[in-house]
Amino acid sequence: MSDVQQGVQQQDAGAGYVHGGKEFTRDMNYIPDRITADGRDGWPVEAGRYRLIAARACPWANRTLIVRRLLGLEDAISLGLCGPTHDQRSWTFDLDPGGVDPVLGYERLQQAYFARYPDYPRGITVPAIVDIPTKAVVTNDFPSITIDFSLEWTQFHRDGAPELYPERLRDEIDTVNQRVFTEVNNGVYRCGFAGSQQSYEKAYDRLFTALDWLEERLTGQRYLVGDTITEADVRLFTTLARFDPVYHGHFKCNRNKLIEFPALWAYARDLFQTPGFGDTTDFVQIKQHYYIVHSDINPTGIVPKGPDLTNWLTPHGREDLGGRPFGDGTKPRPPKPGEVVPVGHNPAL
Amino acid sequence: MSDVQQGVQQQDAGAGYVHGGKEFTRDMNYIPDRITADGRDGWPVEAGRYRLIAARACPWANRTLIVRRLLGLEDAISLGLCGPTHDQRSWTFDLDPGGVDPVLGYERLQQAYFARYPDYPRGITVPAIVDIPTKAVVTNDFPSITIDFSLEWTQFHRDGAPELYPERLRDEIDTVNQRVFTEVNNGVYRCGFAGSQQSYEKAYDRLFTALDWLEERLTGQRYLVGDTITEADVRLFTTLARFDPVYHGHFKCNRNKLIEFPALWAYARDLFQTPGFGDTTDFVQIKQHYYIVHSDINPTGIVPKGPDLTNWLTPHGREDLGGRPFGDGTKPRPPKPGEVVPVGHNPAL
Repeated sequence: MSDVQQGVQQQDAGAGYVHGGKEFTRDMNYIPDRITADGRDGWPVEAGRYRLIAARACPWANRTLIVRRLLGLEDAISLGLCGPTHDQRSWTFDLDPGGVDPVLGYERLQQAYFARYPDYPRGITVPAIVDIPTKAVVTNDFPSITIDFSLEWTQFHRDGAPELYPERLRDEIDTVNQRVFTEVNNGVYRCGFAGSQQSYEKAYDRLFTALDWLEERLTGQRYLVGDTITEADVRLFTTLARFDPVYHGHFKCNRNKLIEFPALWAYARDLFQTPGFGDTTDFVQIKQHYYIVHSDINPTGIVPKGPDLTNWLTPHGREDLGGRPFGDGTKPRPPKPGEVVPVGHNPAL
Repeated sequence: MSDVQQGVQQQDAGAGYVHGGKEFTRDMNYIPDRITADGRDGWPVEAGRYRLIAARACPWANRTLIVRRLLGLEDAISLGLCGPTHDQRSWTFDLDPGGVDPVLGYERLQQAYFARYPDYPRGITVPAIVDIPTKAVVTNDFPSITIDFSLEWTQFHRDGAPELYPERLRDEIDTVNQRVFTEVNNGVYRCGFAGSQQSYEKAYDRLFTALDWLEERLTGQRYLVGDTITEADVRLFTTLARFDPVYHGHFKCNRNKLIEFPALWAYARDLFQTPGFGDTTDFVQIKQHYYIVHSDINPTGIVPKGPDLTNWLTPHGREDLGGRPFGDGTKPRPPKPGEVVPVGHNPAL
């Protein structure tokens, strides 16, 4: 998501993703509309009406792909996928035949933002949900999108859909999510886009302090909150999946690799091997995105060939901690044809 | 050494260290004079006459620091140390009081090259040996410098100096050195300075093919050739010491870290914990050098805070393979005062 956003804003200022001398600050102003069961913002849940626009590369968008699969919302909410790289203005539909989204007819996601606000001044981010009749963006407020999938779209959930945001755990999930967001999900960007040695080192210390906390927390329990997969696991997973392939080198988050944290690494593999997580992860697009788009960090545009990712398939042994991935629910169906990560982009495929 | 050299040549061509579209090719033309026991090139071995100019950052210069210590040549050949960073023209004596080498009176190593050849057209590289009376460079031919320390300076070796290039093993050492040089020592630069995705990927495959060969070779034997430390180990060590701190991220040599090769990593720790190796290794200067000097690869100039290097001190268990580090010789004395790596620049100090 905010990759374009920050890029656009910083390009406007004549720079790239890194502001010399400054800390990285993420713009958290999103289009705040919600799609709800009661339609209070004018956007009622309705099967077939909305299109989720995501990019497999983006960790924030990857969350929506996971939750949509876990809850079985594929038939209710269609999916458009942008390619891994983008220019300073917009994510594009370059993966689609003719470079055009087949439902919206757009080449650039920007067109959906302009259909809503002709002078939209902020970044063109994924995930975004587009109203198909008007071809206009409804919302790009990523933290709400996955919560609303869980709480507002219940009438379209599959049989056996897990409870990802159960009421009894909500306070704890919110607390964990807050720390994971500021210190980890956004913390890696704070390292990579730091504009000074000092702000980088401060960001690095914050990040690894939080990862040490997570390592300790996950040593004795299988999932972040409770004994089933929740929204908290989804949010942490998409950062962990990008850690060794991208953040460790590209963003200099290099005290150690993910694989050097015994519990976190086993936890990440456990999720990866759970339907909905690994099968929405495209390591090729992930690496291309960061190493090609952030040309001020990697001017050569060369994408690392490593790391070896076959280790994601090794046994994790986390079953010994107990827990039931889907609680009283069941695992999701396989991905729909046309929504499968290409062979070779993921060691599980 | 060739860091400046390549930089100078490529800056002349209007670029940095990376030539778009091209493979990296190291200029191997050095000043070929030799300092010998018989003085056949006009440079006889003589205690106190020559000054070794090195930089702890540089892997090629680090070799000379190790061999000089192992052989006990500190009193015969004095040492000047350049700082970790340099501009496009020259390494400098910025670590010395007033920024001037106290013996030569130079601010820039370039002055010693110009004292020899006023129009010296190539890169200003370390290691270099300077004739103190004329303040002119004698040689910068790094592969010969360490061999000559072993074979030509014998009358000044300490009691108990090891044989690093014994005649009976010379052919095997030369064969191993040739492959280690082209595929590993220079192989990491071929990855990092690749001017295209294709040349990078080719370089990466060559590098890891060679590292896999070394991993296999070192699984069953303690040292690269024979059962004692030789010139071959010195040459491999200085690249291995830089692998996780620099080459893995900065040069995208990231199939895996050194610590993921069980035998190579134990071998590297074994050497690191041997006097002469770890005590000449300055990780702070190593990281500063690459991440600051190669501004076309790392334009922000931010130096990674990681990796955690305390793991270099963990037990390596290589004694079980037998071998005697110094053969019939003994370990070297501690470093001379004034030649000690600063506290905090190395986890052993």
